[in-house]
Amino acid sequence: MSEVWLNKIAWNDDGLVPAIAQDADTGEILMVAWMNREALRKTADLGEAVYWSRSRKKLWHKGEESGHTQKVLEIRTDCDEDVILLKIIQTGGIACHTGRKSCFFQKLDGQEWATVEPVLKDPHEIYRK
Amino acid sequence: MSEVWLNKIAWNDDGLVPAIAQDADTGEILMVAWMNREALRKTADLGEAVYWSRSRKKLWHKGEESGHTQKVLEIRTDCDEDVILLKIIQTGGIACHTGRKSCFFQKLDGQEWATVEPVLKDPHEIYRK
Repeated sequence: MSEVWLNKIAWNDDGLVPAIAQDADTGEILMVAWMNREALRKTADLGEAVYWSRSRKKLWHKGEESGHTQKVLEIRTDCDEDVILLKIIQTGGIACHTGRKSCFFQKLDGQEWATVEPVLKDPHEIYRK
Repeated sequence: MSEVWLNKIAWNDDGLVPAIAQDADTGEILMVAWMNREALRKTADLGEAVYWSRSRKKLWHKGEESGHTQKVLEIRTDCDEDVILLKIIQTGGIACHTGRKSCFFQKLDGQEWATVEPVLKDPHEIYRK
Protein backbone atom coordinates (compact mmCIF):
# COMPACT_ATOMS: atom_id res chain seq x y z
CA MET A 1 0.00 0.00 0.00
CA SER A 2 1.30 3.42 -0.94
CA GLU A 3 2.33 5.60 1.97
CA VAL A 4 2.97 8.79 0.07
CA TRP A 5 0.48 10.57 2.32
CA LEU A 6 2.53 9.63 5.39
CA ASN A 7 5.75 10.79 3.73
CA LYS A 8 4.21 14.21 3.29
CA ILE A 9 4.14 14.82 7.06
CA ALA A 10 7.10 16.78 8.46
CA TRP A 11 7.94 14.56 11.43
CA ASN A 12 10.23 16.28 13.93
CA ASP A 13 13.66 15.01 15.00
CA ASP A 14 11.96 12.51 17.30
CA GLY A 15 9.69 11.33 14.47
CA LEU A 16 6.65 13.01 16.03
CA VAL A 17 4.06 15.70 15.33
CA PRO A 18 1.47 17.22 17.68
CA ALA A 19 -2.09 16.04 17.09
CA ILE A 20 -5.12 18.05 18.15
CA ALA A 21 -8.40 16.29 18.94
CA GLN A 22 -11.36 18.56 18.26
CA ASP A 23 -14.98 17.74 19.03
CA ALA A 24 -16.55 17.34 15.60
CA ASP A 25 -19.89 18.73 16.78
CA THR A 26 -19.01 21.63 19.04
CA GLY A 27 -15.54 22.58 17.75
CA GLU A 28 -14.21 22.36 21.31
CA ILE A 29 -10.54 21.41 21.55
CA LEU A 30 -10.40 18.34 23.73
CA MET A 31 -6.72 17.46 23.93
CA VAL A 32 -3.34 17.56 22.23
CA ALA A 33 -1.11 14.50 22.10
CA TRP A 34 1.68 13.29 19.82
CA MET A 35 1.77 10.93 16.88
CA ASN A 36 4.50 9.08 15.09
CA ARG A 37 4.11 7.58 11.64
CA GLU A 38 2.69 4.33 12.96
CA ALA A 39 0.19 6.13 15.19
CA LEU A 40 -1.13 8.17 12.28
CA ARG A 41 -1.32 5.11 10.04
CA LYS A 42 -3.25 3.19 12.68
CA THR A 43 -5.55 6.13 13.33
CA ALA A 44 -6.47 6.24 9.65
CA ASP A 45 -6.88 2.45 9.45
CA LEU A 46 -8.90 2.03 12.64
CA GLY A 47 -10.95 5.21 12.49
CA GLU A 48 -10.06 5.71 16.16
CA ALA A 49 -7.33 7.94 17.59
CA VAL A 50 -3.99 6.27 18.25
CA TYR A 51 -1.22 8.44 19.69
CA TRP A 52 2.39 7.97 20.70
CA SER A 53 2.87 8.16 24.45
CA ARG A 54 6.12 10.04 25.03
CA SER A 55 6.21 9.04 28.71
CA ARG A 56 5.52 5.34 28.13
CA LYS A 57 7.32 5.29 24.78
CA LYS A 58 4.69 3.21 23.07
CA LEU A 59 1.61 3.46 20.91
CA TRP A 60 -1.41 4.52 22.87
CA HIS A 61 -4.84 3.63 21.55
CA LYS A 62 -6.75 6.36 23.31
CA GLY A 63 -9.38 4.81 25.57
CA GLU A 64 -7.62 1.46 25.88
CA GLU A 65 -7.78 1.80 29.67
CA SER A 66 -10.54 4.33 30.23
CA GLY A 67 -12.91 3.17 27.50
CA HIS A 68 -12.92 6.77 26.28
CA THR A 69 -12.03 6.03 22.67
CA GLN A 70 -12.20 8.72 20.01
CA LYS A 71 -14.04 8.05 16.76
CA VAL A 72 -12.22 9.91 14.01
CA LEU A 73 -14.41 11.57 11.40
CA GLU A 74 -11.77 13.65 9.67
CA ILE A 75 -7.98 13.96 9.58
CA ARG A 76 -6.37 17.23 8.55
CA THR A 77 -2.90 18.68 8.39
CA ASP A 78 -1.72 22.26 8.14
CA CYS A 79 0.24 24.27 5.57
CA ASP A 80 3.60 23.08 6.95
CA GLU A 81 2.36 19.51 7.38
CA ASP A 82 3.77 19.45 10.90
CA VAL A 83 0.54 19.32 12.92
CA ILE A 84 -2.38 16.87 12.69
CA LEU A 85 -5.97 17.84 13.42
CA LEU A 86 -8.53 15.14 14.20
CA LYS A 87 -12.24 15.85 14.20
CA ILE A 88 -13.66 13.31 16.58
CA ILE A 89 -16.58 12.03 18.56
CA GLN A 90 -15.45 11.47 22.15
CA THR A 91 -16.84 8.29 23.70
CA GLY A 92 -18.10 8.98 27.21
CA GLY A 93 -17.77 12.73 26.66
CA ILE A 94 -14.50 12.78 28.61
CA ALA A 95 -11.14 13.29 26.90
CA CYS A 96 -9.03 14.33 29.90
CA HIS A 97 -7.45 11.95 32.40
CA THR A 98 -8.65 14.34 35.13
CA GLY A 99 -12.24 13.33 34.30
CA ARG A 100 -13.04 16.54 32.44
CA LYS A 101 -14.46 16.84 28.95
CA SER A 102 -11.45 18.79 27.70
CA CYS A 103 -7.84 18.97 28.83
CA PHE A 104 -7.93 22.75 28.33
CA PHE A 105 -9.64 23.56 31.60
CA GLN A 106 -7.17 26.16 32.88
CA LYS A 107 -7.86 29.74 31.82
CA LEU A 108 -5.58 32.68 32.45
CA ASP A 109 -7.31 35.14 34.75
CA GLY A 110 -4.99 38.07 35.35
CA GLN A 111 -1.83 36.43 36.66
CA GLU A 112 -3.43 33.13 37.60
CA TRP A 113 -4.61 29.96 35.92
CA ALA A 114 -8.21 29.43 36.98
CA THR A 115 -9.88 26.04 36.64
CA VAL A 116 -13.01 26.68 34.60
CA GLU A 117 -14.32 23.23 33.66
CA PRO A 118 -15.93 20.72 36.01
CA VAL A 119 -14.77 17.16 36.69
CA LEU A 120 -17.49 14.97 35.18
CA LYS A 121 -16.25 11.69 36.59
CA ASP A 122 -13.78 10.73 39.33
CA PRO A 123 -10.55 9.59 37.62
CA HIS A 124 -10.29 6.70 40.09
CA GLU A 125 -13.58 5.48 38.75
CA ILE A 126 -12.45 5.88 35.14
CA TYR A 127 -9.22 3.95 35.49
CA ARG A 128 -10.05 1.32 38.10
CA LYS A 129 -10.94 -1.43 35.66
CA MET B 1 5.55 41.61 38.62
CA SER B 2 4.97 38.03 39.65
CA GLU B 3 5.51 35.49 36.92
CA VAL B 4 4.29 32.42 38.76
CA TRP B 5 1.79 31.80 35.98
CA LEU B 6 4.63 31.61 33.43
CA ASN B 7 6.59 29.23 35.65
CA LYS B 8 3.66 26.85 35.61
CA ILE B 9 4.10 26.16 31.89
CA ALA B 10 6.12 23.05 31.04
CA TRP B 11 8.43 24.53 28.40
CA ASN B 12 10.18 21.86 26.34
CA ASP B 13 13.97 21.45 26.04
CA ASP B 14 14.03 24.34 23.56
CA GLY B 15 11.99 26.51 25.93
CA LEU B 16 8.90 26.27 23.71
CA VAL B 17 5.31 25.03 23.74
CA PRO B 18 2.86 24.67 20.86
CA ALA B 19 0.13 27.33 20.76
CA ILE B 20 -3.18 26.80 19.01
CA ALA B 21 -5.12 29.77 17.66
CA GLN B 22 -8.84 29.07 17.61
CA ASP B 23 -11.50 31.34 16.15
CA ALA B 24 -13.41 32.55 19.22
CA ASP B 25 -16.69 32.71 17.31
CA THR B 26 -16.72 29.61 15.14
CA GLY B 27 -14.35 27.31 17.05
CA GLU B 28 -12.38 26.75 13.86
CA ILE B 29 -8.71 25.99 14.43
CA LEU B 30 -6.80 28.58 12.47
CA MET B 31 -3.14 27.75 13.07
CA VAL B 32 -0.57 26.26 15.39
CA ALA B 33 2.69 28.03 16.13
CA TRP B 34 5.20 28.00 18.98
CA MET B 35 5.70 30.23 21.99
CA ASN B 36 8.56 30.77 24.38
CA ARG B 37 8.17 32.46 27.74
CA GLU B 38 8.62 35.94 26.31
CA ALA B 39 6.09 35.31 23.54
CA LEU B 40 3.44 34.19 26.02
CA ARG B 41 4.17 37.13 28.33
CA LYS B 42 3.85 39.57 25.44
CA THR B 43 0.68 37.90 24.19
CA ALA B 44 -0.92 38.39 27.60
CA ASP B 45 0.35 41.97 27.89
CA LEU B 46 -0.60 43.08 24.38
CA GLY B 47 -3.81 41.13 23.96
CA GLU B 48 -2.51 40.12 20.54
CA ALA B 49 -0.80 36.87 19.59
CA VAL B 50 2.99 36.86 19.70
CA TYR B 51 4.75 33.65 18.75
CA TRP B 52 8.33 32.44 18.51
CA SER B 53 9.44 31.88 14.94
CA ARG B 54 11.57 28.73 14.95
CA SER B 55 12.82 29.43 11.42
CA ARG B 56 13.73 33.07 12.02
CA LYS B 57 14.65 32.48 15.66
CA LYS B 58 12.91 35.59 16.89
CA LEU B 59 9.67 36.81 18.36
CA TRP B 60 6.94 37.08 15.79
CA HIS B 61 4.07 39.46 16.44
CA LYS B 62 1.55 37.76 14.18
CA GLY B 63 0.39 40.19 11.52
CA GLU B 64 3.47 42.41 11.74
CA GLU B 65 3.96 42.02 7.97
CA SER B 66 0.54 40.92 6.74
CA GLY B 67 -1.58 43.13 8.98
CA HIS B 68 -3.41 39.96 10.01
CA THR B 69 -3.06 40.39 13.75
CA GLN B 70 -4.92 38.17 16.20
CA LYS B 71 -6.89 39.73 19.01
CA VAL B 72 -6.67 37.39 22.00
CA LEU B 73 -9.86 36.99 24.03
CA GLU B 74 -8.79 34.05 26.14
CA ILE B 75 -5.63 32.12 27.01
CA ARG B 76 -5.87 28.53 28.20
CA THR B 77 -3.49 25.71 28.98
CA ASP B 78 -4.08 21.99 29.29
CA CYS B 79 -3.76 19.45 32.10
CA ASP B 80 -0.02 18.98 31.50
CA GLU B 81 0.54 22.71 31.00
CA ASP B 82 2.52 22.00 27.84
CA VAL B 83 0.16 23.42 25.22
CA ILE B 84 -1.37 26.90 24.96
CA LEU B 85 -4.79 27.57 23.48
CA LEU B 86 -5.69 31.08 22.32
CA LYS B 87 -9.25 32.06 21.53
CA ILE B 88 -8.89 34.85 19.04
CA ILE B 89 -10.49 37.19 16.57
CA GLN B 90 -8.53 37.03 13.31
CA THR B 91 -8.05 40.41 11.66
CA GLY B 92 -8.73 40.18 7.94
CA GLY B 93 -10.19 36.70 8.36
CA ILE B 94 -6.95 35.13 7.11
CA ALA B 95 -4.58 33.29 9.45
CA CYS B 96 -2.58 31.29 6.89
CA HIS B 97 0.37 32.61 4.88
CA THR B 98 -1.19 30.87 1.85
CA GLY B 99 -4.06 33.38 1.98
CA ARG B 100 -6.54 30.94 3.48
CA LYS B 101 -8.62 31.47 6.60
CA SER B 102 -7.09 28.45 8.34
CA CYS B 103 -3.77 26.64 7.95
CA PHE B 104 -5.62 23.32 8.26
CA PHE B 105 -6.80 23.19 4.66
CA GLN B 106 -5.54 19.70 3.81
CA LYS B 107 -7.91 16.85 4.54
CA LEU B 108 -7.07 13.17 4.24
CA ASP B 109 -9.19 11.61 1.52
CA GLY B 110 -8.33 7.92 1.27
CA GLN B 111 -4.56 7.96 0.70
CA GLU B 112 -4.33 11.59 -0.39
CA TRP B 113 -4.32 15.02 1.18
CA ALA B 114 -7.03 17.03 -0.58
CA THR B 115 -7.08 20.83 -0.42
CA VAL B 116 -10.52 21.71 0.91
CA GLU B 117 -10.34 25.42 1.73
CA PRO B 118 -10.17 28.28 -0.79
CA VAL B 119 -7.47 30.93 -1.06
CA LEU B 120 -9.20 34.16 -0.03
CA LYS B 121 -6.38 36.50 -1.00
CA ASP B 122 -3.25 36.13 -3.13
CA PRO B 123 -0.27 35.84 -0.75
CA HIS B 124 1.73 38.22 -2.98
CA GLU B 125 -0.89 40.81 -2.28
CA ILE B 126 -0.80 40.12 1.47
CA TYR B 127 2.96 40.42 1.86
CA ARG B 128 3.94 43.02 -0.73
CA LYS B 129 4.02 45.99 1.56
